[in-house]
Amino acid sequence: MEDRFKKGMDILKIINEDNIEDIFKNLEDIAPDLGRFVVEYPYSEIYTRELVDLKTRELCTIASLTTLGYPQNELKSHIEGALSVGVKAQEIVEIIMQMSAYAGFPASIDAMMSAKEVFKEKDLLPIK
Amino acid sequence: MEDRFKKGMDILKIINEDNIEDIFKNLEDIAPDLGRFVVEYPYSEIYTRELVDLKTRELCTIASLTTLGYPQNELKSHIEGALSVGVKAQEIVEIIMQMSAYAGFPASIDAMMSAKEVFKEKDLLPIK
Amino acid sequence: MEDRFKKGMDILKIINEDNIEDIFKNLEDIAPDLGRFVVEYPYSEIYTRELVDLKTRELCTIASLTTLGYPQNELKSHIEGALSVGVKAQEIVEIIMQMSAYAGFPASIDAMMSAKEVFKEKDLLPIK
Amino acid sequence: MEDRFKKGMDILKIINEDNIEDIFKNLEDIAPDLGRFVVEYPYSEIYTRELVDLKTRELCTIASLTTLGYPQNELKSHIEGALSVGVKAQEIVEIIMQMSAYAGFPASIDAMMSAKEVFKEKDLLPIK
Amino acid sequence: MEDRFKKGMDILKIINEDNIEDIFKNLEDIAPDLGRFVVEYPYSEIYTRELVDLKTRELCTIASLTTLGYPQNELKSHIEGALSVGVKAQEIVEIIMQMSAYAGFPASIDAMMSAKEVFKEKDLLPIK
Amino acid sequence: MEDRFKKGMDILKIINEDNIEDIFKNLEDIAPDLGRFVVEYPYSEIYTRELVDLKTRELCTIASLTTLGYPQNELKSHIEGALSVGVKAQEIVEIIMQMSAYAGFPASIDAMMSAKEVFKEKDLLPIK
Repeated sequence: MEDRFKKGMDILKIINEDNIEDIFKNLEDIAPDLGRFVVEYPYSEIYTRELVDLKTRELCTIASLTTLGYPQNELKSHIEGALSVGVKAQEIVEIIMQMSAYAGFPASIDAMMSAKEVFKEKDLLPIK
Repeated sequence: MEDRFKKGMDILKIINEDNIEDIFKNLEDIAPDLGRFVVEYPYSEIYTRELVDLKTRELCTIASLTTLGYPQNELKSHIEGALSVGVKAQEIVEIIMQMSAYAGFPASIDAMMSAKEVFKEKDLLPIK
Repeated sequence: MEDRFKKGMDILKIINEDNIEDIFKNLEDIAPDLGRFVVEYPYSEIYTRELVDLKTRELCTIASLTTLGYPQNELKSHIEGALSVGVKAQEIVEIIMQMSAYAGFPASIDAMMSAKEVFKEKDLLPIK
Repeated sequence: MEDRFKKGMDILKIINEDNIEDIFKNLEDIAPDLGRFVVEYPYSEIYTRELVDLKTRELCTIASLTTLGYPQNELKSHIEGALSVGVKAQEIVEIIMQMSAYAGFPASIDAMMSAKEVFKEKDLLPIK
Repeated sequence: MEDRFKKGMDILKIINEDNIEDIFKNLEDIAPDLGRFVVEYPYSEIYTRELVDLKTRELCTIASLTTLGYPQNELKSHIEGALSVGVKAQEIVEIIMQMSAYAGFPASIDAMMSAKEVFKEKDLLPIK
Repeated sequence: MEDRFKKGMDILKIINEDNIEDIFKNLEDIAPDLGRFVVEYPYSEIYTRELVDLKTRELCTIASLTTLGYPQNELKSHIEGALSVGVKAQEIVEIIMQMSAYAGFPASIDAMMSAKEVFKEKDLLPIK
């Protein structure tokens, strides 16, 4: 089991190490196992599969979270993750914009505002 | 207005011309304008933007439709579209699998069964 | 309690009596109380309130069911109900089309196909 | 293309000019095209169609946003828009209440709290 | 009608009296009938049925609200309600964790953060 | 890794062995790893945790799937699973009925029709 955890943590170091540290910290006195599951299931089992690169995976996760609409915190973490693995801010904007056709304009606009917060912190605005 | 329509149809010829013909035919006696909007808004305005390639766009649409769960017909059309623009069947499988972490296992399994139908018709099974 | 039931049934006679008979029949050997709740809560308590007319109420229910995406059977019943209280087929088409902007094109197209089935049975196609 | 934009802006002047100005301002350094799409697709193409009046359209949009649950900001904008085109506060309350039957009580209560904020700002409380 | 209301209020005194008082107060100048419906429909008609105990009912409501994702306020009220009827904090944690498989990790993590707020107020952390 | 798989399969033998065999068979030529993940993540990691019993877990999963609305196949499998671990048909009916308050009547009625199919096959109708 430790190996699965280590494998997940190794990929999280590339994608978004701060975010998983936050998740661990937030969950430690209530549900530490849920933090472990995040590492061991999606990160260890899914993100490590090399048939699709991390940039595409992160953009697809951004598409999914934009569609769900409510998880803006997780969306912001994955926007940071996308930037970390080399996705350009403009590509993130494009995919969020595309979601207007599948999840509606409110989903797209809400997600864009979350992207804007992340980009602002990282001094990436205005998008060119 | 005609130019926008033509621009959308041009990209649909690359992605999934049969699908848009079906949409037109299905809508012609009830809401032909809705068919026109599909061409003029997502296809003409979004899919033509070159900052993200069609392969990535189709995978993100597959992620979104898997997350919504109910639109299995549209999902099948976009799986066909993804294959048409050069996405490999295995990549589609990977993204649908990834959605289990964001939209749950039922969403992922339902979408995989739709993918299977499309792949079977196109003689792409078993996935290697 | 009988009065609430009677009040709901009276309005259902105007909107869609066949549909509630179907619901009763479908639920009778599994959950007859759920059928009673449908009459006593939404129909008796909500649809009888005269501050909004039945035509507007049915169009708003169509908007909601189109947005949810999965309940196509209930959507078809409410399309029938809308026609019964005097909504024109074209108005139903317009509202379903409008939902493309809030719930996405797949929601809108799926609902339009359900409307088409109802309109076809009632010989209302093509929509003018 | 300018004509479509102008047509959308003309109707937005009636519905909710301040809101579209906010959207433009919020999007200007990240995705100005998304703001343009909001004007050119839903407002120019949908809200201008005269087969359904603006009051009914706004109530149906309120029904849809209440059903989605997460987009409370967009809901508040459309509640303002509904009031601008002549919908009475009480009618908005009725439709949000009706959604309890299709989207559940939490959706209905959350939307009611958003309506309350808008009505309070406009000194429309208590609703009679 | 008064009897139904009284029956609902009696069970609410066991589950979460403060919460219904808040709902009444929040709705009093906008939609008092919606508050009455909450008492008369779910609490009076559903929660009083003795075939399933209140502990199981509250855990199932927590599962549903976690799945919907957006109604974190209602979720917090039902977490309080669950504790009031004797559900252990650890059981709530377990069910929210379980939802990761059906509604995705973001739904599960968001709900866990809401549970944490409630547990913190009630001095129930760390969960053992 | 084999141990995790075995642990999940052991609990699936109690809950619904036929269902996992179907999932494996359905996924074998497209995404066998997804079948493995279902065993290794929810069943091995979640359902084996003894802090909540299997009856309550299955009822909570039924609540979640009813709320999602679209996954009727998965819902039917979990209704079978619930019966296998000793939940009474009437308890399943109660929880599905309860969901009308949180996910709306269409969600509740659709799920009840799925329950009816399962109960009919198992000769459990009429529910007493």
